[in-house]
Amino acid sequence: MELLRVTYRLEGAPDDAEARAEAIAREHTVEVPRAVVRDAFIEREILGRVERVEPVDGAALATVAYPVATTAHDPAQLLNVLFGMSSLRDDVRCVDCEVPPSLLRALGGPRFGVAGLREATGVHGRALTCTAAKPMGHGPKALADLVRAFARAGLDVVKDDQGLADHPFCPFEDRVRACLAAVEEVADETGHRVLYAPNLIGTPDRVWRQLEFARKEGARAVMASPMLLGLPVFWELCRERSDVPVLAHPSFGGARAFATELLFGSLLRLYGADAVIFVGYAGRFGTPRATCRELADRLRRPWGGLAPSLPVPGGGVELENAAELVSFYGRDAMLLVGGSLQVEEGAVQARSRAFVEAVREASRGA
Amino acid sequence: MELLRVTYRLEGAPDDAEARAEAIAREHTVEVPRAVVRDAFIEREILGRVERVEPVDGAALATVAYPVATTAHDPAQLLNVLFGMSSLRDDVRCVDCEVPPSLLRALGGPRFGVAGLREATGVHGRALTCTAAKPMGHGPKALADLVRAFARAGLDVVKDDQGLADHPFCPFEDRVRACLAAVEEVADETGHRVLYAPNLIGTPDRVWRQLEFARKEGARAVMASPMLLGLPVFWELCRERSDVPVLAHPSFGGARAFATELLFGSLLRLYGADAVIFVGYAGRFGTPRATCRELADRLRRPWGGLAPSLPVPGGGVELENAAELVSFYGRDAMLLVGGSLQVEEGAVQARSRAFVEAVREASRGA
Repeated sequence: MELLRVTYRLEGAPDDAEARAEAIAREHTVEVPRAVVRDAFIEREILGRVERVEPVDGAALATVAYPVATTAHDPAQLLNVLFGMSSLRDDVRCVDCEVPPSLLRALGGPRFGVAGLREATGVHGRALTCTAAKPMGHGPKALADLVRAFARAGLDVVKDDQGLADHPFCPFEDRVRACLAAVEEVADETGHRVLYAPNLIGTPDRVWRQLEFARKEGARAVMASPMLLGLPVFWELCRERSDVPVLAHPSFGGARAFATELLFGSLLRLYGADAVIFVGYAGRFGTPRATCRELADRLRRPWGGLAPSLPVPGGGVELENAAELVSFYGRDAMLLVGGSLQVEEGAVQARSRAFVEAVREASRGA
Repeated sequence: MELLRVTYRLEGAPDDAEARAEAIAREHTVEVPRAVVRDAFIEREILGRVERVEPVDGAALATVAYPVATTAHDPAQLLNVLFGMSSLRDDVRCVDCEVPPSLLRALGGPRFGVAGLREATGVHGRALTCTAAKPMGHGPKALADLVRAFARAGLDVVKDDQGLADHPFCPFEDRVRACLAAVEEVADETGHRVLYAPNLIGTPDRVWRQLEFARKEGARAVMASPMLLGLPVFWELCRERSDVPVLAHPSFGGARAFATELLFGSLLRLYGADAVIFVGYAGRFGTPRATCRELADRLRRPWGGLAPSLPVPGGGVELENAAELVSFYGRDAMLLVGGSLQVEEGAVQARSRAFVEAVREASRGA
């Protein structure tokens, strides 16, 4: 059985590191209490296993081996297995992974890579040069003038600034056409054809349209910000859409540093979530009560004509605390209960019913 | 002029907080040294402005006002303005924002929200209940049996576990069909029609196909993990694709906690980047040299048959240190130089040329 080995750094005293690693191994695969894992196939071929835990300067490094089948060999599901839920913990970092052959084949890596960029630039045997067409605010003509100057100077690659989108003051199509014309002008003049990489940005629909336009106009490379567009989009761009090299920009690589209430309370609503699942105070993530309160308030309070979103606290919702949670969040909420309904074999329906009744009952008083 | 106001928490001594806030305001808009901002339009209508900086328990809160036009009213570009590059700093958190009316209208928020979920479940005046079909590893029949039990118990909503993808042991279409059949069976039997929300996961192409199938089979809600699929994808799903309510799952909300060398050195290559721009040791992000070394090595060394990616250090690349950088990264690298080429008015081409020559020269010795 092929294994995906992932190493986590667990901050804090290493005493309970083994147990924390076990929790991650479960969290990223079955995401139910150990007692729920009764099926032999699931235990053998799905559940992650802790292979090694070693102390390291006041923390611990834990290696978890996941059966590769858990990833479905899909670029999005892979992220769930690597770091889906434990990314939400402040004391865990995903520090390394060992990707088995079938997953390497499924994702496939660069289509062009170093060789393709060398071919596109004609640069061999030396380091390449690159700069950006910027700042935002320039119109197509001013940016094309910059590209012209960079090309004349012999830069190998000029990329758009990652903040150049489809702005009314500098529309994508006008910009790309103008910059590519500048490239050709200098090529005719000097023989040096700089590689210009337009920035693709937007929803998938918009990005595919931008790519199509850029290619039709003769762009020989493109750029995108994978963490901003979403890694699965980036993968589709690289492997299934683009027939020219793709540069990755690091923008938005650190979304974790969003405050919890901003990301889950405001941004997800702004982005259109009708209901927002979050990890509440009751559970294993230890979100402060005040944060949960603020988050739920933000999802529901009047905000510029936006419809309210339904708060869905999860992570630690149990039959036993359901009533308290209803009194905390009120009626405009949905309690998301997890594996605890399945803790008792053969009693799923009975426990579920009890949970349902507890919430109904508590809502009467809320 | 409409403003997008964003608040950042700056860790560490508040002495230089004002200057750090100014840097963020510039970073998220023009991303060039202040001296490069010479155009009156850019200074007035593009550049972010620090409105307030106040000390708060050993750190500082800074509010930056961005002209809303910088966002292009696009769901992806908005992330650049909010937190694109400063998300890469360990000492900055994006803690709040105030969204102006035109941006609220452009993104639009939930299409269904609380009212739509109440309508879909028939639940009014009380908190709703929800659980998950899980664990991963069950086949469609076992999951449908769970849904049946939850439905009979009167749960309002059953969502797929976020880790249920299109696994060979439990294909998406078989699972959704089986679970929806269970829903209808219980509805016929008891009159209670539980709201089952299948998990959509994958690249945009795959997600749209999953949505289409789920809707055709009668699903009346869906779920997705926005930070995992990418927030712009999630937005397109909510606003332009789905005609039923969408639940947001928090998985992968903390990608920042990836080690730098893993994310930029391994994952982006695995996902297909032909060239990877990262913030190197020379610059304002202070990535340790050892990290840069490891990252660049990972992009280029043999790895299961994947083509190597081109390392592109940026952030702090200057005419003055170009030679040293080439000697550090070697020839299979591309130096990304930024606004410093434009620092001296009227000398873009001359400075660019000098940079080009410096790299050519240094490459001979590398």
